[in-house]
Amino acid sequence: MTRLQSTEIKALRAAAPPLPLIPAPAVSSDEYKSPYTQKKPSAKQLDHHLSLESRNFTGSALKKGSSPSGPRKIISLGTGRPTADYYLWESISLNEASPEPTSKATPKPNLQLPKEQENRHSANTITKHGLTYNLSIAMNYCLANGSAHLLRFITEHVELVHNPPYADWATFLSCGATAATEVAFRIFCNRGDTILAEQYTYPGTLESAALNGVNVQGIEMDADDLRADAMDEVLSSWDDAQSPRPRVLYTIPTGQNPTGVSQSRERRRAVYDVAEKHDLIIIEDDPYYFLRMGPYHSHHYEANETNGTDTNHHAYEDEAAQVYRSESIPSYLALDTSGRVVRLDSASKILAPGLRAGWVTASRHIINKFNAYQEVSTLAVSGPSQLMLWNLLDENWGHDGFTTWLVHLSREYRWRRDVLLDACNKYLPREIVQWNAPEFGMFLWLKVGWRQHPGLKGLSDLSLGEVSAQIVGLEERIVAKALEKGVLVTKGSLFASNQEREDHLHFRMTFAAAEEGDLKEGVRLFAEAVCEEFDLGN
Amino acid sequence: MTRLQSTEIKALRAAAPPLPLIPAPAVSSDEYKSPYTQKKPSAKQLDHHLSLESRNFTGSALKKGSSPSGPRKIISLGTGRPTADYYLWESISLNEASPEPTSKATPKPNLQLPKEQENRHSANTITKHGLTYNLSIAMNYCLANGSAHLLRFITEHVELVHNPPYADWATFLSCGATAATEVAFRIFCNRGDTILAEQYTYPGTLESAALNGVNVQGIEMDADDLRADAMDEVLSSWDDAQSPRPRVLYTIPTGQNPTGVSQSRERRRAVYDVAEKHDLIIIEDDPYYFLRMGPYHSHHYEANETNGTDTNHHAYEDEAAQVYRSESIPSYLALDTSGRVVRLDSASKILAPGLRAGWVTASRHIINKFNAYQEVSTLAVSGPSQLMLWNLLDENWGHDGFTTWLVHLSREYRWRRDVLLDACNKYLPREIVQWNAPEFGMFLWLKVGWRQHPGLKGLSDLSLGEVSAQIVGLEERIVAKALEKGVLVTKGSLFASNQEREDHLHFRMTFAAAEEGDLKEGVRLFAEAVCEEFDLGN
Repeated sequence: MTRLQSTEIKALRAAAPPLPLIPAPAVSSDEYKSPYTQKKPSAKQLDHHLSLESRNFTGSALKKGSSPSGPRKIISLGTGRPTADYYLWESISLNEASPEPTSKATPKPNLQLPKEQENRHSANTITKHGLTYNLSIAMNYCLANGSAHLLRFITEHVELVHNPPYADWATFLSCGATAATEVAFRIFCNRGDTILAEQYTYPGTLESAALNGVNVQGIEMDADDLRADAMDEVLSSWDDAQSPRPRVLYTIPTGQNPTGVSQSRERRRAVYDVAEKHDLIIIEDDPYYFLRMGPYHSHHYEANETNGTDTNHHAYEDEAAQVYRSESIPSYLALDTSGRVVRLDSASKILAPGLRAGWVTASRHIINKFNAYQEVSTLAVSGPSQLMLWNLLDENWGHDGFTTWLVHLSREYRWRRDVLLDACNKYLPREIVQWNAPEFGMFLWLKVGWRQHPGLKGLSDLSLGEVSAQIVGLEERIVAKALEKGVLVTKGSLFASNQEREDHLHFRMTFAAAEEGDLKEGVRLFAEAVCEEFDLGN
Repeated sequence: MTRLQSTEIKALRAAAPPLPLIPAPAVSSDEYKSPYTQKKPSAKQLDHHLSLESRNFTGSALKKGSSPSGPRKIISLGTGRPTADYYLWESISLNEASPEPTSKATPKPNLQLPKEQENRHSANTITKHGLTYNLSIAMNYCLANGSAHLLRFITEHVELVHNPPYADWATFLSCGATAATEVAFRIFCNRGDTILAEQYTYPGTLESAALNGVNVQGIEMDADDLRADAMDEVLSSWDDAQSPRPRVLYTIPTGQNPTGVSQSRERRRAVYDVAEKHDLIIIEDDPYYFLRMGPYHSHHYEANETNGTDTNHHAYEDEAAQVYRSESIPSYLALDTSGRVVRLDSASKILAPGLRAGWVTASRHIINKFNAYQEVSTLAVSGPSQLMLWNLLDENWGHDGFTTWLVHLSREYRWRRDVLLDACNKYLPREIVQWNAPEFGMFLWLKVGWRQHPGLKGLSDLSLGEVSAQIVGLEERIVAKALEKGVLVTKGSLFASNQEREDHLHFRMTFAAAEEGDLKEGVRLFAEAVCEEFDLGN
């Protein structure tokens, strides 16, 4: 099937009308989608999924009328947007680095910022009244979709990577995936509703659901994450008399938080089929999609320390192709023929969390609701954040440069993961602690068998309540002991969507933050804490 | 009474512990309040005002445990915060201008950026690992309160300007006043509740209330804005059997949007007394507080055009004193002995709207709820926005510099307002259009007597429904005709909290955005539209 290629972008842009250079122009990602997309069939009508709250909510009438378009000059005595004369920032210069490997295990990426070769300083100086996206626009109000300049790049990116199989999808710039999740619950769920999610999931999502009166039904997981058959079983045996049937699945399909597992291509298809069968909205929270580390080979780096090469990585071209060809692991958006997927992307894990920026892709009808909510809350993503993203992604990198960065970042994470896993192999007592190597993302999920704890062996005599308290106490003690030794790990119970007692305690570790030496030392200290607690010599 | 002076800040900061330089430190404005504040009595317990939704909501457990404090190094394998090694922005240089008058009517402010005299370039270059607030912190996650560096300045600012009369107030950085308003409704209101507001108010607030199932009861206004007696009357005669008694007043007390009127000192006291009597929460949405234009003297600038001086302005010292001494027009926060005021400030109207930043001040207990909501939505204000604000306000200006800017900006707005009002005097037909000169803010509210419209004079024969449709039609036609001529004004009906027919149509004009010539031309074109519609020769 013919689909948009990054090499076509330049010509498509040239043939399109120029981007507006007025404050808060009304823009839509429709303007930036390719002709390939426009020829596809439309999404299904899924209005029955809207909540009572969102059904008739259309956002801000004032904002919708605030930016008349057209070639003629309009004097605005309309909306209270202070003139750029009163923004004290005259220009901003962004010194953006070419990525450098932080370890000898990662090869140097072939990504010189194009502008670097020219006049680097001036190329990255954004002035108040420059002839493209500038401070007079970025520091003014912005409509909820986002600025024309950044939204164009992001829309193209979404089409290049995911190529959604229907025509009327749209992308909008969100203030991060956490904010978008909360809004999604408001758009789709009434109080008392139940949604489905992985058995262990992001605590912010659990808290956000609870805030909105939404119950979370955890679905059993296996090595491929969410079990489609278990989900089907829950829905097929649902007692409608007891509570409204779930209409929403929330899933973190890639490098799942906290378990680190990823859904295979087949699993995604199976889950999507169940969603089709039971008419579910799928909220695809996928911030780790681009952190692709691949399989782990134990003690790899230690063995190769002398020559400093990484025999573990694929050729760059293969990895780049994986980023732009969702064939390997397609997103739900890439599978979505019906328009039932709400895909949440985030800049936090691939560029910088402080930007508070991300993007949401779904059918236009659903995105209109996201827009409406944004119009009465944050209004838009911060202008400086948008400007920084645009300058890096669009002005400096372009789509191929972005891919190069994502491949490089994946290699960096692979190295970090391997350092952590090597240390786990070295220090953790295998008889007590188990784990699987994550192939995506930034988290390692440790299972600790509490039945082997000396104080908990005589379990059968104790009531369930007594045992639960003791297990919770054990989890607390291990975390506290580790912290006392100087390492912070996260309690697994924070992630449990169903509060069921299991044979294992869990702890989540991330390899995203610490330096190489600290990754090793952190694992060593945690291992000490576990061994002391379990009375093991180490 | 002794209160904090800006001259004391330096010593207080020196005596306090240094600001943390770790990602996402847990900070509180308590750390930045002066000893004067700490000696005051505590706020009242107002927990009964919390909504069912917010009552037990405490935010994110994961975030609360994510940044252990203390002098000892902790290796974080805890939260997934990507290392600063992967933020591609190495440094940002901010070229901040000294403010310049945009009109000869405004004197040049005495505000040279202090750093400008030294090495301007290096002073405003923020590097990734600089020894104060830097990119490695700003581009990482930030806890909901805000960064230590900006929160300190804002907390000091709030104390200097408002000096809240109780001890346990707190300030938190919000993503703008619109977002804060929506969250405030969620914190205090259940579905079906009614809040009080000015008869005409910001449409975003009406939409936000409607979204949350909250009814808005408009309170009559006079030349001093909200009528305290009318509010008392509404509450005293409330039929509790019909619907729950209002517990929240939402007010825009200064340079009200859309009417431009401001509550006098006496009116504020009277409204606060009614709030005390009926136990109301006051949401004080006050983005125009610092745009202080003073009385208008007609045709002032035209008369003085030859010598170019502005005889209308007070001495700079008087105006600066007004900013820091809330005696002239105190905010509700400054009057709030009970802790029932939630004050919303915004950077949008005084610095730049694209920052999507503001601050909320209220009792600590209430601010904890704002924090909790932020933890499951945007998480924090954009890092680049915080960094820009901090660099300008704290590193360059300091508190006295900020005051100087606010005085200068007020003078600029005075000039803009006068240009607009002079044009109104010159062009608008007084027999049809009336207005009062606003002394604060950025809006002019025009009343148009529809009874004088040739097509509406034989009114008494028509049913109310027919008249309403005709009045709405007239409003639409005037706005459409003005837009056709090239000027955008805003329909008054967008702002009406009660949909009652009145003797006047309303239109809102702002003088915040257009250039001098366009302000005049815009009014001329609008006057043409009105005259044509009313069959007046002009």
